[in-house]
Amino acid sequence: MAHIDPFDVSDEEIDYGRLIKEFGTQPISSIGNLPNIKHFRRGFVFSHRDFDLFLNEIKKGRKASIITGINASGSLHFGHKWTMDLVIGLQKEFNLPVLLTISDDEAYVTGKAKSQEEAFENAKLIAAQLLALGFDPKKTRILIHQKYTKIYNLAIKLSPRCTMNEIKAIYGFDMSRNPGQWFYPIIQAADILLPQELEGKHQVLVPIAIDQDPHLRLARDIAERAGYIKPSAIHMRFLRGLKGGSKMSKSKPGSAIFLDEDPKKAVKLCMQALTGGQPTVEEQRKLGGDPDKSVVIEYLGAHFIDDDNEFKKLVDDYKAGKILDGETKQLLARHVESFLTSFQPKVEEYKKNINSYLMVD
Amino acid sequence: MAHIDPFDVSDEEIDYGRLIKEFGTQPISSIGNLPNIKHFRRGFVFSHRDFDLFLNEIKKGRKASIITGINASGSLHFGHKWTMDLVIGLQKEFNLPVLLTISDDEAYVTGKAKSQEEAFENAKLIAAQLLALGFDPKKTRILIHQKYTKIYNLAIKLSPRCTMNEIKAIYGFDMSRNPGQWFYPIIQAADILLPQELEGKHQVLVPIAIDQDPHLRLARDIAERAGYIKPSAIHMRFLRGLKGGSKMSKSKPGSAIFLDEDPKKAVKLCMQALTGGQPTVEEQRKLGGDPDKSVVIEYLGAHFIDDDNEFKKLVDDYKAGKILDGETKQLLARHVESFLTSFQPKVEEYKKNINSYLMVD
Repeated sequence: MAHIDPFDVSDEEIDYGRLIKEFGTQPISSIGNLPNIKHFRRGFVFSHRDFDLFLNEIKKGRKASIITGINASGSLHFGHKWTMDLVIGLQKEFNLPVLLTISDDEAYVTGKAKSQEEAFENAKLIAAQLLALGFDPKKTRILIHQKYTKIYNLAIKLSPRCTMNEIKAIYGFDMSRNPGQWFYPIIQAADILLPQELEGKHQVLVPIAIDQDPHLRLARDIAERAGYIKPSAIHMRFLRGLKGGSKMSKSKPGSAIFLDEDPKKAVKLCMQALTGGQPTVEEQRKLGGDPDKSVVIEYLGAHFIDDDNEFKKLVDDYKAGKILDGETKQLLARHVESFLTSFQPKVEEYKKNINSYLMVD
Repeated sequence: MAHIDPFDVSDEEIDYGRLIKEFGTQPISSIGNLPNIKHFRRGFVFSHRDFDLFLNEIKKGRKASIITGINASGSLHFGHKWTMDLVIGLQKEFNLPVLLTISDDEAYVTGKAKSQEEAFENAKLIAAQLLALGFDPKKTRILIHQKYTKIYNLAIKLSPRCTMNEIKAIYGFDMSRNPGQWFYPIIQAADILLPQELEGKHQVLVPIAIDQDPHLRLARDIAERAGYIKPSAIHMRFLRGLKGGSKMSKSKPGSAIFLDEDPKKAVKLCMQALTGGQPTVEEQRKLGGDPDKSVVIEYLGAHFIDDDNEFKKLVDDYKAGKILDGETKQLLARHVESFLTSFQPKVEEYKKNINSYLMVD
């Protein structure tokens, strides 16, 4: 099967059913649906830990919140947008406070950013992009580690609840790595437990891609030992890279459309995306395309076509050969261009006063 | 030989000449004396790294500074006072800025303090004691890690210049320790390099007990790789514990007089201290005492008798049997009682506004 860990996701096809078994999580199907949120409705959220407990707390009117983290390796792309759209959907659905933590420290110690300054600039860009994506500024806190260094105190508080053997077992690090990399899992656990540290014990939900589950398992173990409530998690399927493969990534050029991409260049990337079409137009008219193979169709559904019937019609037409690859690409390109053109000025606006949105020590 | 590492100093007698060879440091004798400072004059500073470079910078009128660190396991004792008297002596002699870092984070992750709150309270007490010992408040900065968490950013900056293999080789930690303990050496390196980070490259002196040399070596290696000037160090002999043995320690009850001790109890501790006397008064009058064996004489010389001739007379009289153990103990007890009685109200005064003396993020 595909190799999944927080630092390496292979390009082989991912067997999500098998992941549920291997990671010891629960299939989401066991606790019903959230029909207002596309990610649930269309089966992109496939697995969870204690999500039922989280929903119960909300049902009972008790305090609950959401936390999710983003690495500061550079601008967000449409893969991040997809995750953040889910978090924004949950925030709106349940009117929940959200904590967004941006790990510029990890971006630097792992070499994803060349300097701390670069990592911090990335982090501020990401913060502005998150706000522009639609988080409610009144119910959302944004934490950048280099700015909110107090997170170190909580990490130190949690540290004696964990051993280096556990870090090794979960991450498989070797001793040629630097101390900051080995320590970082405790910083991330501190992020996840910060809402309870600041506002008292409550059920916290961590929406993550499945490759981040090891972080979450460590945080859950530490939470239990340190007297916090174990956080809940929901796991999402990855959106594929533009040219196929398991995941968008900065390290695979052309695999992702970044949210700071020039809209005209983004159009070109859309036109190069993987489709599920036939070798010739004639064949596609006759045999139809394979919508499951088409990244173009996947992106249209995930990012732009919210109406299920409208999306079903697109899929059916594609299968029937009524819509050709060129047309789906044009459709995606128009959507992406239009989105970026209205999104990017909003980001610039938030960037002007970004410090006022950041948590400070 | 005695086993020396930052976390364990054995009670066997310490062979300082051998330590110089083993640690690869230079004997202080090679660079002359600082006659105004008792610690140099009486041979308590026995070894160094690049202290000649430090003195040269001062001679040339160039920027130089001192940094030293204190663990926040509890109140300072007379062993710490002895080290701090040296730092204060150097500050006065050369009119130098001093950075004092108090590691309440390490006190907690190593279990020397039961909670972060306790460690922080210890740290504030220590800060007040340091000021009361006589540091110049205008030229001294005091940093407590839980208060100045920005130190985490510098630690992260330095982290990629070092590997876990190096930490293991220097400290011999095993993987059952917690991640904060393994990370702490990088925090300490950050302390040592902070003066250069904040004020540009310059020669920094780190006066330390020899058991702290591994921290210093790591900081020197990292300094070189990260483009700072390698810090200089001078190494002090330990003052012995009250009952003998290699070092005062909180973990050996009765081995140290703490600076927050009730003066009356401190008097009792003095009366129980190790002497170099004979089994009977008659024998001591006849054979004389061994001043090198007497902790009482050692403490009198280190802490209270600044005049070399006066101290020499005491030693000679003791050797000749003219002064008995009881008299030396009484003399020490009166000095200690008088010191604590005037010192402790000063500490209380500094404690009232201690926050105004601490570095903030």
